[in-house]
Amino acid sequence: MILRQPRFAAGLAVALLTLAACNAPPARGQDQSLPGPDSPILADIIAEPVAIASPDGRLSIEFWSEAGLPRYRVRRDGEDVISPSMLGLRFAVAGNLERQLWLVDSEMSGSQSSWELPWGERRVVEDHHNELRVSFRHEDDADRGFDVRVRIFDDGLGFRYEVPVPDGEHRAIVDEVTSFAMPQDSETWWTPAADYNRYEYVYRTTPLIEVDTAHTPFTARLPDDGVHVAIHEAALVDYSGMRLDQQREGVLTAELAPGPDGIAVHKDGAFTTPWRTIQVAEEAVGLINSDLILNLNEPNVLGDVSWVEPGKYIGIWWGMHINTMTWGSGPMHGATTDNAIEYLDFAADNGFAGVLIEGWNIGWDGDWFNNGALFSFTESYPDFDIEAVTDYARTRGVRLIGHHETSGHLTNYENQMEDAFDLYERVGVTQVKTGYVADAGNLIRIDETGEERHEWHYGQYAVNHHIRVLEAAAARHISINPHEPVKDTGLRRTYPNWISREGVRGQEFNAWGVPPNPPEHTAMLAFTRMLAGPADFTPGIFDLTFNGPDSPNRVQTTLARQLALYVVLYSPIQMAADLPENYVANPEPFQFIRDVPTDWEESIALQGDVGDFIVTARQERGGADWYLGAATDEAERTVTVPLDFLEPGRNYTAQIYRDGPDAHWHDNPYDVAIESREVDAGTTLELWLAAGGGAAVRLVSSE
Amino acid sequence: MILRQPRFAAGLAVALLTLAACNAPPARGQDQSLPGPDSPILADIIAEPVAIASPDGRLSIEFWSEAGLPRYRVRRDGEDVISPSMLGLRFAVAGNLERQLWLVDSEMSGSQSSWELPWGERRVVEDHHNELRVSFRHEDDADRGFDVRVRIFDDGLGFRYEVPVPDGEHRAIVDEVTSFAMPQDSETWWTPAADYNRYEYVYRTTPLIEVDTAHTPFTARLPDDGVHVAIHEAALVDYSGMRLDQQREGVLTAELAPGPDGIAVHKDGAFTTPWRTIQVAEEAVGLINSDLILNLNEPNVLGDVSWVEPGKYIGIWWGMHINTMTWGSGPMHGATTDNAIEYLDFAADNGFAGVLIEGWNIGWDGDWFNNGALFSFTESYPDFDIEAVTDYARTRGVRLIGHHETSGHLTNYENQMEDAFDLYERVGVTQVKTGYVADAGNLIRIDETGEERHEWHYGQYAVNHHIRVLEAAAARHISINPHEPVKDTGLRRTYPNWISREGVRGQEFNAWGVPPNPPEHTAMLAFTRMLAGPADFTPGIFDLTFNGPDSPNRVQTTLARQLALYVVLYSPIQMAADLPENYVANPEPFQFIRDVPTDWEESIALQGDVGDFIVTARQERGGADWYLGAATDEAERTVTVPLDFLEPGRNYTAQIYRDGPDAHWHDNPYDVAIESREVDAGTTLELWLAAGGGAAVRLVSSE
Repeated sequence: MILRQPRFAAGLAVALLTLAACNAPPARGQDQSLPGPDSPILADIIAEPVAIASPDGRLSIEFWSEAGLPRYRVRRDGEDVISPSMLGLRFAVAGNLERQLWLVDSEMSGSQSSWELPWGERRVVEDHHNELRVSFRHEDDADRGFDVRVRIFDDGLGFRYEVPVPDGEHRAIVDEVTSFAMPQDSETWWTPAADYNRYEYVYRTTPLIEVDTAHTPFTARLPDDGVHVAIHEAALVDYSGMRLDQQREGVLTAELAPGPDGIAVHKDGAFTTPWRTIQVAEEAVGLINSDLILNLNEPNVLGDVSWVEPGKYIGIWWGMHINTMTWGSGPMHGATTDNAIEYLDFAADNGFAGVLIEGWNIGWDGDWFNNGALFSFTESYPDFDIEAVTDYARTRGVRLIGHHETSGHLTNYENQMEDAFDLYERVGVTQVKTGYVADAGNLIRIDETGEERHEWHYGQYAVNHHIRVLEAAAARHISINPHEPVKDTGLRRTYPNWISREGVRGQEFNAWGVPPNPPEHTAMLAFTRMLAGPADFTPGIFDLTFNGPDSPNRVQTTLARQLALYVVLYSPIQMAADLPENYVANPEPFQFIRDVPTDWEESIALQGDVGDFIVTARQERGGADWYLGAATDEAERTVTVPLDFLEPGRNYTAQIYRDGPDAHWHDNPYDVAIESREVDAGTTLELWLAAGGGAAVRLVSSE
Repeated sequence: MILRQPRFAAGLAVALLTLAACNAPPARGQDQSLPGPDSPILADIIAEPVAIASPDGRLSIEFWSEAGLPRYRVRRDGEDVISPSMLGLRFAVAGNLERQLWLVDSEMSGSQSSWELPWGERRVVEDHHNELRVSFRHEDDADRGFDVRVRIFDDGLGFRYEVPVPDGEHRAIVDEVTSFAMPQDSETWWTPAADYNRYEYVYRTTPLIEVDTAHTPFTARLPDDGVHVAIHEAALVDYSGMRLDQQREGVLTAELAPGPDGIAVHKDGAFTTPWRTIQVAEEAVGLINSDLILNLNEPNVLGDVSWVEPGKYIGIWWGMHINTMTWGSGPMHGATTDNAIEYLDFAADNGFAGVLIEGWNIGWDGDWFNNGALFSFTESYPDFDIEAVTDYARTRGVRLIGHHETSGHLTNYENQMEDAFDLYERVGVTQVKTGYVADAGNLIRIDETGEERHEWHYGQYAVNHHIRVLEAAAARHISINPHEPVKDTGLRRTYPNWISREGVRGQEFNAWGVPPNPPEHTAMLAFTRMLAGPADFTPGIFDLTFNGPDSPNRVQTTLARQLALYVVLYSPIQMAADLPENYVANPEPFQFIRDVPTDWEESIALQGDVGDFIVTARQERGGADWYLGAATDEAERTVTVPLDFLEPGRNYTAQIYRDGPDAHWHDNPYDVAIESREVDAGTTLELWLAAGGGAAVRLVSSE
């Protein structure tokens, strides 16, 4: 057995767990049908599990080969988090990496550093991890196998496959063997992924055993009030997205979205996979307070990104969802020059940075849902003068936010993309919302023979498409906010112009969704979808009962809760989604939307339970003010919030927007109480949250 | 437009629906981006929908091309059953059959006939249908396209693709576009198929909108007490199994299980797909009383099959499930010669045809679940003398039932199969239970390079494997009862030695399943799983609380319900699954198991609601006696059953096995009342069924 000496980074301790014999996996060689470690080809087989621990020593992962099957397990304080689980890859033609693989090499290191986010939940991100590389090789061919590289932090870990393949050779990956075994009665919070839909689902709360397939982030809590776990992936680049499939009771297995040729991922030569991430936290908020996903992504490749601008926006948008306007042309067309000027004025008067205008371009009048080829991204409808609109915007110090609905026709968009971004660059548009409305598995790509190919939103082609769009946009200092996107895997670190995205059952479902988002929805999102990164949820609906109080199509929150969402759900761009007239009619609560920033010096999820409630505090970037948001599910509750995150000795005025005493999301959503009081770091706020309610607090520094 | 004159079979009327203009699909040519019908290549485009109706004229299906997209819809009495839905196929390389396809030809016929089942729910099957073939061809290539052939019966229809491909050309099918659109609030009863597991699930009752993926048969009821619908497939041969995936709200789309190369189906030259079937019935029992699936299968290809023997059996089996015996060797080994002789005696003494003995062969002592290569199918354990056992069986006039657990290692089994069947033929075994225990997607095939490939239980390779096994067995006059099989699609008509199968969450889950099968389970199965064909559910557990009454591992029915299952759940072979000692201890109820046959002259599902209750009557084949079975869910109920199915004027003695007055599946499962009364066709029985209960009645003809 040859175990290379771990290399320690200066000043860092790396803990190598010594496994107690009682915890060791079954000894090899018990199974007489498989060769033992005396392979003539693999001389240096490591017979014992190789483990590495987090910097604080409490979390560990170990790797071994059980009769040729590569396995891993994760423990915290000695207790299983992920019990022994599988590793491996399968290919369309020979060369599977699954069996007859033995652990032959390992290498360790550690790292502690910090880096800055150009925009984000916090300015400075700490990265303190230990790292282990283990090598599994085939007993018949020492060149065949994979390495697993793991980075382990105090709050979780990520591992990825690094697969040596000779130059010039191709690999067609059809399946990933990676599994995640947890007790069947773990509590889980998840959305179904059976159809690889666009992540627009109500979350389910079930025991693990009731999961069929699930998107990630997948959040769980081990039985008996055990630790919280979130499974996801980081740095999804030139690969296919992973979903989880319960192929055996209690065992979630990775599945990769297939391409139109049945192959999930095509790779030439050596390759690495995205990181498979496992966050672990005692308290649910620990999942939110982790920077694991960002730390596992590559640094910014765009250089100076000062042109990426967080900020708030309004839009000609909600009217289309509640049927007072249309995307297509005609008497109710929303995207007219006149409407644009009205919205630009409102934005300028109220401190918004931009106005999104959808339906401005030719293509909305046909069967656009099923024929993305109809869209032009450079031709406006006659009643929308883009030059006039952007000229006027410039005089008012605001911007038009661009819009590219592709209806999932990737090729039609890629063919026009350069021209489309040129146009936007010329007229001063610096942010574009893109859209990929299409049935699951029905993104359209025209292949080299001229034929249509059908791609999943999470397939390798679509994953790469998003990067191509980001790069074309970045070259023109434009940021991208895709809807119906691929999920977030932290690539905003690498491409900071990936300013936000949808990939969530957003506010629009309250206009027409069956059912609308339930009262718990946004409290649930904080512990699930939002672990991936920013979401363009579009909060701020004030007219919660736009179809009348008895219509099923309404918002199932109180008004105060709509304000809380600006703090609870992070996004560097935040929409005020309602019609301007509803803000004009409610100037007092609207003041919070005017005040709240979208870029933060620091963020702290203070308390909460998954799907029940969440309390979050954030400090304005470049400022001394803090903001607090609280949201609950269908149950009213009182949260007790010590303000010990404030700067000691400094005085603050708390501007509190809370549910009034009669508030209830269904019966009385508009009862909001607004009050001020003086507070400091020693103050404890008691905030009563109505059923479906919330609270938003601005903590204005006295200095 | 050229519409060929329909050819009418003599004496049969074929109804061609004339579609009212208000129901017609959108006129073509509205979409300027797609070519109109004036294709220079396709001269003879049929611009109107082509429809065909069932013999009674109430059910219809129509086909058309909507802007080049082939579509169909199904109506009953003018109301949509399947609203406009998609047709098409996608391939791994160019040549998709999905768009730019136009209706160019159609041909109609009709047929009325009857045929005999060698064994089955009834002796004579009526086949009365109309038939339509429509041809869709590509606007750029008149040789590219597909035909759809539909056979429409009064109680449903089936359609299949018939795809012309030049000889020598290959098609790699990755996806089927076929969809089934129904209202989102339809009631549905289904099992999840997200992992293509082995059909061993508790059924779910949900609105359609909550379906992710589902296996077939998939049962639904349209809103407002509309018709019942069951979607399934028939004649799954040399193809991959279909599951349903809700890719858009209210639209189920066909998905095909992929092979290890990512391709669902490989085809050389012209091919036809299995039939996609849609059963339609006003009453739920109408689904059960349909022979649609059988009628769509090809006739018997095995010739004289008098050697296929329906009958009852016991087995050395339940002991392994409740941990009083083991499959593997050792002191608790179940499959010993001594145990075999004891069971053979019990079988002979009580009229059973056979004794299943599991764990007789070498291979059970290793990690058999994960290594099917361990199994030998010709070598017995030393304590099991197969010659002695079968010699003794012969003296007692009963048979050993063979057992081949493959643990999913298809190649290991195929390599030994001929020898294994030779052995069984030599010792007089005429039925073999096979087994494919393996995780979803983990059937093992060793390819031509010696490498492991992983197959789904429903992939094309496994589908063909089952046929290979059937043919090898048939050559030796052996019948096959596969567990963890591919689903039933009616192939017992073509291969009558396919004597039964599992593919259901069977009795064994009551021994160790979490949770056990709920009280409604078998009432649910009648309307769902059983629509596919016989199931080896293994009823007849008398010791319902084998782990004590408070253990979660118990049977959640009354004892009378266990008797009812022999009538409610059809299988030509039925196990009496409990330990012989439990039958010896309960001779009165056991008498029903001794009496009940397994082959039928006629069967009638009399009344029921999906998942709630079912009442079924069957007449013994070659006899005058009838048998009645009734089963309910967790709710007690009284069923009122007119015996008008009996022969008028004939007298019968009803031997009634019913729940006693205090019976309840949980509180008092053993309270069974047995009584006799004289009845005739004018009698109406009132049967009270306890919660989780049932009733079994033998109606003994007086002559």
